[in-house]
Amino acid sequence: MVLERVKQLAQQVSNTVSPPHPLDPLSGLEIDTAVSILRKEHGKLYYNAVTLLEPPKKVMLAWLADPDHTKRPARIADIVVITTDGKVYDGHVDLTEQKILKWEATPGVQPLITMEDLNAVELTMRKDPKVIEQCGIIGIPPQDMHKVYCDPWTIGYDERFGNTVRLQQALMYYRPHPDDSQYSFPLDFCPIYDSNKKEIIHIDIPKIRRPVNQAPPNNYDVKSIEKSGGFRTDIKPINITQPEGVSFKINGRLIEWQNWSVHVGFNYREGIVLNNVSYFDKDEGKTRPVFYRLSLAEMVVPYGNPERPHQRKHAFDLGEYGGGYMTNSLSLGCDCKGSIHYMDFDFVNKAGSAQTIKNAVCIHEEDAGILFKHTDFRDDSVVVTRGRKLLISHIFTAANYEYCVYWILHQDGTVQLEIKLTGILNTYAMNPGEDTKGWGTEVYPGVNAHNHQHLFCMRIDPNIDGPNNTIFQVDATQGPGEVGSEENFYGNAFYAKKTKYTNPVEAMADYDGATSRTWEMANENKLNPYSHKPVSYKLVSREVPPLLPKKGGLVWKRAGFARHAVHVTKHSDDQLYPAGRHVPQTSGEPSTGLPQWIDAHPNEKIDNEDIVLWHTFGITHFPSPEDFPIMPAEPMTLLLRPRNFFLRNPALDVRPSYARTPTQVAAGSSGSDGSDKKSVAV
Amino acid sequence: MVLERVKQLAQQVSNTVSPPHPLDPLSGLEIDTAVSILRKEHGKLYYNAVTLLEPPKKVMLAWLADPDHTKRPARIADIVVITTDGKVYDGHVDLTEQKILKWEATPGVQPLITMEDLNAVELTMRKDPKVIEQCGIIGIPPQDMHKVYCDPWTIGYDERFGNTVRLQQALMYYRPHPDDSQYSFPLDFCPIYDSNKKEIIHIDIPKIRRPVNQAPPNNYDVKSIEKSGGFRTDIKPINITQPEGVSFKINGRLIEWQNWSVHVGFNYREGIVLNNVSYFDKDEGKTRPVFYRLSLAEMVVPYGNPERPHQRKHAFDLGEYGGGYMTNSLSLGCDCKGSIHYMDFDFVNKAGSAQTIKNAVCIHEEDAGILFKHTDFRDDSVVVTRGRKLLISHIFTAANYEYCVYWILHQDGTVQLEIKLTGILNTYAMNPGEDTKGWGTEVYPGVNAHNHQHLFCMRIDPNIDGPNNTIFQVDATQGPGEVGSEENFYGNAFYAKKTKYTNPVEAMADYDGATSRTWEMANENKLNPYSHKPVSYKLVSREVPPLLPKKGGLVWKRAGFARHAVHVTKHSDDQLYPAGRHVPQTSGEPSTGLPQWIDAHPNEKIDNEDIVLWHTFGITHFPSPEDFPIMPAEPMTLLLRPRNFFLRNPALDVRPSYARTPTQVAAGSSGSDGSDKKSVAV
Repeated sequence: MVLERVKQLAQQVSNTVSPPHPLDPLSGLEIDTAVSILRKEHGKLYYNAVTLLEPPKKVMLAWLADPDHTKRPARIADIVVITTDGKVYDGHVDLTEQKILKWEATPGVQPLITMEDLNAVELTMRKDPKVIEQCGIIGIPPQDMHKVYCDPWTIGYDERFGNTVRLQQALMYYRPHPDDSQYSFPLDFCPIYDSNKKEIIHIDIPKIRRPVNQAPPNNYDVKSIEKSGGFRTDIKPINITQPEGVSFKINGRLIEWQNWSVHVGFNYREGIVLNNVSYFDKDEGKTRPVFYRLSLAEMVVPYGNPERPHQRKHAFDLGEYGGGYMTNSLSLGCDCKGSIHYMDFDFVNKAGSAQTIKNAVCIHEEDAGILFKHTDFRDDSVVVTRGRKLLISHIFTAANYEYCVYWILHQDGTVQLEIKLTGILNTYAMNPGEDTKGWGTEVYPGVNAHNHQHLFCMRIDPNIDGPNNTIFQVDATQGPGEVGSEENFYGNAFYAKKTKYTNPVEAMADYDGATSRTWEMANENKLNPYSHKPVSYKLVSREVPPLLPKKGGLVWKRAGFARHAVHVTKHSDDQLYPAGRHVPQTSGEPSTGLPQWIDAHPNEKIDNEDIVLWHTFGITHFPSPEDFPIMPAEPMTLLLRPRNFFLRNPALDVRPSYARTPTQVAAGSSGSDGSDKKSVAV
Repeated sequence: MVLERVKQLAQQVSNTVSPPHPLDPLSGLEIDTAVSILRKEHGKLYYNAVTLLEPPKKVMLAWLADPDHTKRPARIADIVVITTDGKVYDGHVDLTEQKILKWEATPGVQPLITMEDLNAVELTMRKDPKVIEQCGIIGIPPQDMHKVYCDPWTIGYDERFGNTVRLQQALMYYRPHPDDSQYSFPLDFCPIYDSNKKEIIHIDIPKIRRPVNQAPPNNYDVKSIEKSGGFRTDIKPINITQPEGVSFKINGRLIEWQNWSVHVGFNYREGIVLNNVSYFDKDEGKTRPVFYRLSLAEMVVPYGNPERPHQRKHAFDLGEYGGGYMTNSLSLGCDCKGSIHYMDFDFVNKAGSAQTIKNAVCIHEEDAGILFKHTDFRDDSVVVTRGRKLLISHIFTAANYEYCVYWILHQDGTVQLEIKLTGILNTYAMNPGEDTKGWGTEVYPGVNAHNHQHLFCMRIDPNIDGPNNTIFQVDATQGPGEVGSEENFYGNAFYAKKTKYTNPVEAMADYDGATSRTWEMANENKLNPYSHKPVSYKLVSREVPPLLPKKGGLVWKRAGFARHAVHVTKHSDDQLYPAGRHVPQTSGEPSTGLPQWIDAHPNEKIDNEDIVLWHTFGITHFPSPEDFPIMPAEPMTLLLRPRNFFLRNPALDVRPSYARTPTQVAAGSSGSDGSDKKSVAV
């Protein structure tokens, strides 16, 4: 029966008229196929992940170079399961050949916590007598246990429990009414949940008890706002329309737009992955590769309160929960405005069935303001050209917080990553008059929002006119020679000091605001014909706080990738996740991921090689009452900008909104008017 | 005759049905009145500036507090003239009383260079025999002198000439055809022009000569693009419309929008000035003052090539030319899209007549993406609310460059300043194979674009619930206690270290990227009832390079304001311009403006006083070919964000695009849908 199902599914896969792009995420059908093959061999399993094993880069590059005459890379599923007796297995299943390529028990690790894992905790917690007892102590009677909620986090790492038992910590809240925001009613104790046993095995109880908050709810739902003064009535609609359609073309998950071509991948960890990002260069008459792969690969959110058990609050939202798994199904006109193309995401559930997040990825264009302008002061001759941008975005909800991730392509060859933080502060209980000791802010009576950082790790696999690239650190530096010297008489000399990274140890670098530090990804084998400098893309990132948890401490050990703003490694197909493949309950001894990889090959040559740049950036957040009860989006952004890559401004051929030359001015001609007739003066 | 005209004009002024707001720029009529009064007394004068003398802050605050029962502040013109024999006078004329309040000769200064001053140089230069001779030496025959152009800059400061003679330096270019971009044909010598004599008094000639560039033109005009491959044809229109009108109300120059109220001033130096920026706080039931005055008060653009005479390239674009004077007349649909309200700007010409820049200021709304969102992972109950922003902008052209200045109000109480740099690189000639020595980049054959910085000084006059405010430096800082200690066992403690500035010397502070340094403008007399911290606004600015020209050098001496990221001074009505009132040809000995003011009162109390925060920010630009022949806009931004100012997110009452509560989810109700019906899925 199972075998028949497998054969039937395999047939369906091979019958597909358009075979998937080798980097397309696994379809629901492919997920079902993989599960069927495994089920036949291994019986009942709890599925943690069934995702595309991306083809090796060399194989992909060969196929991309000549897809018509190169064997299509195999479709292989990368699989994580937990057996019914709690063992973890990692496997690979070849979907084309219908065989299991790899099946290995992986002891001493915990795969990420899925949404199903999360949702299981609350019901168990509510029935646990010790939890009910603790609720009673702080003022919640047993009959109100249905009003008790928890945000179940991975335990992070707790040395008392190690990593052999799969654990979650339940951050506890209370809701007087189901529609009340629970984050105004944090509870002071923290149960520990065993995912395999499905029971509460421990409760962390603070020495100082904090009865449940007696303040009125601080809500953001429609009814509450209507009761407390109502909504603003003076905001008129803005309509954004594209009556002639959009400017991008989509073929499967390949997008072409304004000389850009890009494949939009997606997986359960990183969410959006941009593959084979390329730009058609009119001057060179060809499409030039820029990035082989771009993604947000990991993040960590350390909280700054040193009192136990708050040290455990340092979520690796991608590695411990999955930015793909937590992705929102988006709504037209709510999350993005205009003409939207959506992409869905198929993933596996615990039982092994394919599930779908509809509208997981939003693709749309936006006006981008002035692209360039110049007026000649002599005669008011002018060129003014408006820009356009393409946004590829998803939003994921990590318990209390939301992360809105926008990958933005610009007409001038710039790639921008913008992240908006919104959602709700993680909160903890405090007694009236209690001292926060500076580790948090009382954002509402009885509500302590702890200091925290959001540190993201962007994985940049550059392909600047080919895979062999070099990273240069660029520092704005004063020239030599004191004021009054022959070489620098007026003291105004300054230049871009470039430092080449030749091995991964050299390349562990911090940000320096004092030199406006940037990093160039360069191809030293190709010089710009005008500037005689290597073709390159520059990383311009200004929100780069250092990891504040101290060296040798828990977060520092576990989040090795966050110790520096930049790491560079030689490309390796299996090095995708800088905190390691299985992140929950890692002790940090050794620190998995980047530190391990670098320790293994500290002197590896990384200049003029196939390399990966890992960039950690983010913000440090000291909460305040205006972040509560729901936080206005806090934006942060970084740019990847072409430098010495093009011969000239590559967006010169975007038609101006208005242009008039000096001879047209002199002749009284009105010039070339491409301006927007829909705009009105008011 | 003159007297009659004055009386007649004064009558017109007093007959105006709505008297101007005390901070409105002078109208054309008022300018004419001021000139008539002066002309009667002093005869023929060359007018450099006739602008509003803003009422003293104390007078204004009293009037704002109770306009119906307080005497309206007088309308006074602040005047700079140059007499026919080259003397500079500063004066004040009371337009209400029709009398001259002040008339003082100001020796040893040069007022800024007006557009008329700029335009005068080119014609003289073309006829000068020594210039014609130099053109001949580098390959331009005398009959082609009409193809020779110059961008006349102030001389900055040249110790050979001092500041008693009014000078400009002519940066020289060639245009094969009038529509060619001259910046591909820079010439290697630099004439010095005497504005009073109207003649070339000197030419700086380099030791190494550089014949005029023989490369073909590198153009961006429509014909040139059409010839070299044509325009992109695959960009479809985006229409942005507000069928029900705009959400802001305008009364004269007062704008009300989304709880904000602000007066939009404008002057010849700073361009846009935001006055009396206030927010209606629903929770407090009143309008709360936030900023008394916000402006870009000065800037300096030092170039990094130490070879003479390039040290003179360090334009103070606001103080030496005037951001208002250089402001573009904006076009509908070209400079901004949507429903636009424009404001004009009246200024005086050299002869004393009022002139108008039509559409100098653009005011419009834009969609601002997600304002806040939260989804409950348990049941997908959700609130998603879209934001809106109001942009108040102008664009000015400083010879080759354009600066697009956007003052942006957000619904959540944030004020944002965004600046886009576009236009054209300043270029200098280079011979084939010549070494740029790292001071510039060959952006096109024969074209050397020098390294430079754009450093802006934002003047923030805070009024956080009243004029008595305090500045705190805020540094994200690790907590005390080593890893393993009782107080910081896991090493994760961190906090916001706040340093109060008590005098101007303490307050001379640099940026520190390593601590994500911000600055809070706080009112220590009023604590947030929840957090018990002073109500404040935080300056979040991340593009803050240090001044790269060295201490003691020419730029360092002249641009004292740029030595630190932050200065704080006690408010003084006459301290508006941080490089001083008259900037051209200042030697920097002493350094005018901020350093002088601070030196005069180094120990002045600045905590809990009426203070001004001066913030210098910007970028360091190492050019590359993609910045040429016209530069894609490079954006930079900073935020002023409420911290502990409001009781809660002040934008909670913006109606959600979509909201569904847990009880609605449970009941199968569709929730509250305010979503945009114009968006479409494609």
